[in-house]
Amino acid sequence: MANSQTTSDEMALVVLSGGQDSTTCLYWAIDRFGAANVSTISFDYGQRHKIELECAARIAKHASVSNACLPINTFASLGGDALTDRRIAVDSQISAQGGLPNTFVPGRNLVFLTLAAAYAYQRGIDHLVTGVAQTDYSGYPDCREGTIRALQQTLRAGMESTVSIHTPLMHLSKKETVELAVQLGALPALALTHTCYNGKRPPCGECPACELRAKGFAEAGIEDPLLKTQ
Amino acid sequence: MANSQTTSDEMALVVLSGGQDSTTCLYWAIDRFGAANVSTISFDYGQRHKIELECAARIAKHASVSNACLPINTFASLGGDALTDRRIAVDSQISAQGGLPNTFVPGRNLVFLTLAAAYAYQRGIDHLVTGVAQTDYSGYPDCREGTIRALQQTLRAGMESTVSIHTPLMHLSKKETVELAVQLGALPALALTHTCYNGKRPPCGECPACELRAKGFAEAGIEDPLLKTQ
Repeated sequence: MANSQTTSDEMALVVLSGGQDSTTCLYWAIDRFGAANVSTISFDYGQRHKIELECAARIAKHASVSNACLPINTFASLGGDALTDRRIAVDSQISAQGGLPNTFVPGRNLVFLTLAAAYAYQRGIDHLVTGVAQTDYSGYPDCREGTIRALQQTLRAGMESTVSIHTPLMHLSKKETVELAVQLGALPALALTHTCYNGKRPPCGECPACELRAKGFAEAGIEDPLLKTQ
Repeated sequence: MANSQTTSDEMALVVLSGGQDSTTCLYWAIDRFGAANVSTISFDYGQRHKIELECAARIAKHASVSNACLPINTFASLGGDALTDRRIAVDSQISAQGGLPNTFVPGRNLVFLTLAAAYAYQRGIDHLVTGVAQTDYSGYPDCREGTIRALQQTLRAGMESTVSIHTPLMHLSKKETVELAVQLGALPALALTHTCYNGKRPPCGECPACELRAKGFAEAGIEDPLLKTQ
């Protein structure tokens, strides 16, 4: 949420899921802070498709930045409990999103960002970058600007830090995100990303995630490099 | 942080570590919401002494409330990384607290409470209760009132919920916490708690945690039931 100018020796940590949005954010961070000051973090939280983590590692290597992967085994327990207990809240989120794993938990991004902040704090990194967006496609309340602003305040108070959470895509449409990726020279890296809910490579082209991605590229008048490589 | 009156059918989730403070909070919650509306959650995060989790389960059983235990394997990776990487921040916190496990991470309580909030959300529970306090002994910024207030706002925004975080001990001294436990009839349950940093039963009596506990009971003029049972 911070708009302050940064000096070249400040460091940034990008939460890298291996998807299109976080990869675009990585290149935004490299553009702003310099590759030497940027590192990435991914979370192995029981996602349905481990290919996301492989993509994240490959993208980081392509961009010449480090990639740490932290395990989180809690979501699986939370999701599992929910499914055997009171399943209404979880199920409605699954169906509304058309294919989320049953390890989805409300406020998941809050956990990711809090753990990323702890990791960053231990390394003297003051800038977190995340690809959350409240436009176009994300119905998640933990992706909205108000939530991220409140979380930044919580992290600053709770860690006595001056951490800033940057959300370069917050108000961009998918089309604008593609255009930003082009501007930042991120297009070759987008060939390495993973989007498909069905975990397919080449992508299935039919799931909501593939459709949304295709729509963004089509509206931007850009060919998706992921499809070109297949 | 909420002061609103609650009706008898509202439910509360107590973050139960197995220690004196969270056990007192459990009895505070039972007093306020009724035992039938109270449940507890504990976290198996790689703490040095697993006996804490056994105590939490035993205390919940004693109080006739349920106890769920969620695993968190992330802190061990974070702690481990810190010790092999930049150890300054972590070490200073360890030494200041006289014996924390090396799995301590900054903002740890934020993660606990966020996961507890996710668990509560899935079950329609609107009240979280935690034993954090900013008086007397806790130097942790993630235990302070301002942090908890910011976190409550973050959780409400990030989960579109009306969750309230209750912190009955926030401004109490250890002496006052003991007095509250007596008022609430929690003294027998305190015999089941674990405090000692050295993981000993009977407690070592010499570590900072044992000393602090002893001081609270002495100032309140109450005999510690944990010592009576040895």
